[in-house]
Amino acid sequence: MANGMLERISGPADVKALSRARLHDLCRDIRATLLEYGHAHGGHIGSNLGMVEATVALHRVFDSPHDRIVFDVSHQSYVHKMLTGRAGAYLDPARFDEVTGFTNPAESEHDQFTLGHTGTSISLACGLAKTRDMALAASGGADDAGIGDVIAVIGDGSLSSGVAFEGLNNAAEQGDNLIIVLNDNEMSIAGDFGGMYGPLARLRASNGTAQPNLFNAFGLDYRYVAQGNDVDALVAAFEEVKGIGHPVVVHIHTLKGAGFAPGASRGGATDHAGVAVPPTDTGVAATGNVSHAEPWKSDHCDLPDAVPHEGQCEASHWQTPDRALGRPDDPRKHYGKLAMAALERRFPHEPGLVVVSPATPGSNGITHEFRERAGSHYVDCGITESHAVAFASGIARAGGTPVVATTASFFQRAYDQFFQEMSLNRSHVTVLDFLGGLSGSDNTHSGAYDVAMFANIPGVTMLAPTSTRDYLDALAWSTAPAGTPGRSDGPVVIRVPGQSILDRERALRRELSPEEVLRGSEGAGVRPAWDPAGMLSYRTDRAGSGVAVIALGNTHPLGERVVKALSAAADGRSPIDATLIDPRQCTTLDTAALESLRDGHRLVVTLEDGQLEGGWGEKVTAYYANRRTAGADGGMRVINVGADKEFTDRVPLADLDERYGLTVEAVVRRIHEALGE
Amino acid sequence: MANGMLERISGPADVKALSRARLHDLCRDIRATLLEYGHAHGGHIGSNLGMVEATVALHRVFDSPHDRIVFDVSHQSYVHKMLTGRAGAYLDPARFDEVTGFTNPAESEHDQFTLGHTGTSISLACGLAKTRDMALAASGGADDAGIGDVIAVIGDGSLSSGVAFEGLNNAAEQGDNLIIVLNDNEMSIAGDFGGMYGPLARLRASNGTAQPNLFNAFGLDYRYVAQGNDVDALVAAFEEVKGIGHPVVVHIHTLKGAGFAPGASRGGATDHAGVAVPPTDTGVAATGNVSHAEPWKSDHCDLPDAVPHEGQCEASHWQTPDRALGRPDDPRKHYGKLAMAALERRFPHEPGLVVVSPATPGSNGITHEFRERAGSHYVDCGITESHAVAFASGIARAGGTPVVATTASFFQRAYDQFFQEMSLNRSHVTVLDFLGGLSGSDNTHSGAYDVAMFANIPGVTMLAPTSTRDYLDALAWSTAPAGTPGRSDGPVVIRVPGQSILDRERALRRELSPEEVLRGSEGAGVRPAWDPAGMLSYRTDRAGSGVAVIALGNTHPLGERVVKALSAAADGRSPIDATLIDPRQCTTLDTAALESLRDGHRLVVTLEDGQLEGGWGEKVTAYYANRRTAGADGGMRVINVGADKEFTDRVPLADLDERYGLTVEAVVRRIHEALGE
Repeated sequence: MANGMLERISGPADVKALSRARLHDLCRDIRATLLEYGHAHGGHIGSNLGMVEATVALHRVFDSPHDRIVFDVSHQSYVHKMLTGRAGAYLDPARFDEVTGFTNPAESEHDQFTLGHTGTSISLACGLAKTRDMALAASGGADDAGIGDVIAVIGDGSLSSGVAFEGLNNAAEQGDNLIIVLNDNEMSIAGDFGGMYGPLARLRASNGTAQPNLFNAFGLDYRYVAQGNDVDALVAAFEEVKGIGHPVVVHIHTLKGAGFAPGASRGGATDHAGVAVPPTDTGVAATGNVSHAEPWKSDHCDLPDAVPHEGQCEASHWQTPDRALGRPDDPRKHYGKLAMAALERRFPHEPGLVVVSPATPGSNGITHEFRERAGSHYVDCGITESHAVAFASGIARAGGTPVVATTASFFQRAYDQFFQEMSLNRSHVTVLDFLGGLSGSDNTHSGAYDVAMFANIPGVTMLAPTSTRDYLDALAWSTAPAGTPGRSDGPVVIRVPGQSILDRERALRRELSPEEVLRGSEGAGVRPAWDPAGMLSYRTDRAGSGVAVIALGNTHPLGERVVKALSAAADGRSPIDATLIDPRQCTTLDTAALESLRDGHRLVVTLEDGQLEGGWGEKVTAYYANRRTAGADGGMRVINVGADKEFTDRVPLADLDERYGLTVEAVVRRIHEALGE
Repeated sequence: MANGMLERISGPADVKALSRARLHDLCRDIRATLLEYGHAHGGHIGSNLGMVEATVALHRVFDSPHDRIVFDVSHQSYVHKMLTGRAGAYLDPARFDEVTGFTNPAESEHDQFTLGHTGTSISLACGLAKTRDMALAASGGADDAGIGDVIAVIGDGSLSSGVAFEGLNNAAEQGDNLIIVLNDNEMSIAGDFGGMYGPLARLRASNGTAQPNLFNAFGLDYRYVAQGNDVDALVAAFEEVKGIGHPVVVHIHTLKGAGFAPGASRGGATDHAGVAVPPTDTGVAATGNVSHAEPWKSDHCDLPDAVPHEGQCEASHWQTPDRALGRPDDPRKHYGKLAMAALERRFPHEPGLVVVSPATPGSNGITHEFRERAGSHYVDCGITESHAVAFASGIARAGGTPVVATTASFFQRAYDQFFQEMSLNRSHVTVLDFLGGLSGSDNTHSGAYDVAMFANIPGVTMLAPTSTRDYLDALAWSTAPAGTPGRSDGPVVIRVPGQSILDRERALRRELSPEEVLRGSEGAGVRPAWDPAGMLSYRTDRAGSGVAVIALGNTHPLGERVVKALSAAADGRSPIDATLIDPRQCTTLDTAALESLRDGHRLVVTLEDGQLEGGWGEKVTAYYANRRTAGADGGMRVINVGADKEFTDRVPLADLDERYGLTVEAVVRRIHEALGE
């Protein structure tokens, strides 16, 4: 229950000034605020609920910003933000947009880095500590480079990342002070996966005494805090390691979603606010009027994905705000479910068909229900994109059919495996690339760079389907079993369609349901078998003359509207009977199609919803520039429309389209300018 | 001493047919062959000498190719190749080029993958095992997908890779047969670095019984073989795990370079051939006439880098063939040494200046001697590119000055950290990018893709210096301490010059020595301070008209020759007074320079020694195409010369230049063709 304490906290000094008893009241107020905020705004509520006491204890004991706290992934930094001058951004709905969902040095001197991918906090902390130690050594202890204790806060699934292990292995060599707080909430995003979790459970059961101890095995000192939601226990543990002269792991056992009463309405949740559920080694000791049903404690959460729940269930990873309830699926979920349905239909007779998810399956429509049905045809390998792509390459080498699915920006972690294990080895891997292209995402999660990443790797085919039909054809082609005539030659990346494609299909009532796909009924009269000869050919949607618009992937609906606008005389201009082409892929140029445009066209316009530099359209430009034909016209004129090379942070998609000229008006204007030379 | 056994081995069946005693003779013959081969051809001799007995034992016990052996990095697969029908390629100098230095499915059904980067073998093996197990489950045990036991062979430093830990953590979940052979030779490339090596040493000292056991901590079964160069012990250990129904680690303790007599001449080494030095827990038991000085057993190898040595010293990572002795440094070593000298001069008064090497320091001129002198200013973090870049970002955030140095293709492992921790966070990191651009390298190590990788990341500056002076200026600019006016704004990648630049400097007698740089004498009249305003500007080396050649990085000497050739009337053509421009960087376009070329030029030619798609030249093309000026000439004509999007494997650089038209004749011809339209 909100008690007004949080609004009186303007910085860590205020946390230090509280009596010990009042710390508990502060935790209660923070928890109530998180629940209110989660219902209204959404966010990583479950993990933050688990970290309330630990974050209060960190700021009680350490002296940020002189002591540096590095939050891994930084999705669990809400409480840290509340305690470092930004409580108002969580208390007042009008101010919700004042803070990002991740740490951000531009917001506060207490934030060390902008982070949104997992596992790098230990390495970053090693760097901070290294510089401190070099300065101290050079100055005889007089200069600490402005850095005291260095604390990396990791957990909530991110320990499984390869770079986290690299960091653990290097931390011991660091020598001096370095504190790694492991938030062990028994959860990765979709349940723990991996051999280390058994020994971690035995560590918990033994109050931190059992061997093998993974952290000791990396040469690190180790402490265990069983009561990871008991602020007093945490303060004591952190005081013990404060100023410690060597690297140490403080393993704290927390409860993800602590204090959330599942199924509660907003009012109900408010009633339950302030209920902390500190874990013990023997179970959950409810200290308030929390429901004792505790469904979020089960190994397999029973709540369907349609219901938002901030507890320990995976769907809570990104809690949906109340106002979004009942809305239709976003494109990631929609197209993800369609792909899973198309694959699931084949599981009974294709033992080698395996879906591999290195993270966030729920966000990509790989539902809990699908995973249960898929059994061994589905592998959640934790947040390990590098492993996932190498693993898939191994499956392919053995004759199996792997499909690796995650979000575009996370795939950056597997860049080398895409190059080496996948493409160089001609591994028949399908990559489902979610959230590719422009979006209003955080700067850490933008998919604007996916074409530049995938399409410049030799040997990779990247498809950008513009309809459900093309999307399912692409998947059928790329996952065709060995021996199927005309199946894809090597790895295929399928860029999952975005909002503009889904909007068009909904408007045209062409939307398919996963159930239809699962039954195979979409094939009856709707979907012919894919044509192997045509998978990589450009498709002319409208044959015209003068101007050809080649619109890749999510920009195809824009291309349609541009061509329609050109066909209408306006502003005293003559109508243009433009050609519209769907290139369908962005890894090879259909030179026959490009050459045929020379007949009757003098301007080619490329549209793409990603970065121009290193992207697709500039290859079309270079093609024509380097293969000019004789004649006085100087060859084909080409203009490219797409995104600048820049990071963008939560800029609405419509604003980005405006910024980059990806609107009907802007494209038509550029065409007329080019023709009017 | 060679005994002729190896030439009678045409496949694994021949290994199985030998008597137990003859296995020892075979090992001796293999070792002698490796030493002869190493002297004549060069290669990863040290690691292969350590794996002689283990590889013989693997083929004695397992049934390749039904049983699948996946060699991590695959640089230690020479013995495997000898035993699988390819012995002739090691015995007969005329046939040395018949095999690659890595496993290669195109060579043999016994090779599972083409690999050259570390740490993915466990994940790949998981994929093979997964497909086998799915097939067995679906068929009621009748169909194993052609796969029996699956064995990943990892070690020799590659265990420190993040993806290897991801694989270890996932292996336990695999369930059925999966055998991980850890080749523990107490060595990473340049000595072990990391907290796990202490516990590993205690495992060795306890005959595999001590806790914490890293592999148990990942939930894996574990066996230890102290005598990793005793073929009988290895056969027994492998027989014990053959057909095992769950994942298991077999930790074998080997001696890198076993049998090599340091400092021996070719003849001397031959005399010592056949001397195995099996390690025991108490030390090295020499079983032959090996020198007991054993300098390669010391923690810090005392052999200077100039001396090739296949033993345990790091410089042996890539043993240089005898014929290369005494040759001048290649560009990696040459320019690497210059950079280290320039930094070393500053160590005494810049405590935050730190060189971070995630692998192969010796190959990049980061010599043993430098590392000794650098002390804490140098960090070898093992083969951990992801960690290295995040670590450097932490150093930068703390106000330090990190320089991360390794080979271009290995940096692919840190792609996400370049994006997130480095660039998005505006971390002031310097990246020394070795072997960037075209080379005759293996397909796994090609640097042809480095511009497409680095230069398309928002916020990264990538410089391609074309002289020692520019190179040292670039380094001084990018590593200028915080507060230096005009220092680089954010991360800087410096592409280390290649052979063409070094050849030109040698021809012009402009070559500097590391000693001159260390003394700072290169600054006296030779090197002015860098000009902050000009670091990113294109430089006009020769002002002409009609044609402008913009030659990036290593193609600059080619550009010079092209411009010279154009200036001479030939084949009845008029001379062309062409402009030559050094763009100096490839991440932003100097639009003022490009605009000024419109005055008097009608053709721009871009030259680059990397992939055109996603590369640099196409950006110049797109610039002019999208900013055409009014006029009948159709705007600036641009042609791009560079590499195709493809993998190439050990194709000599001159052949690649020919293939891609990167020769004076080809470029001049294209220019005349373009002008003759």
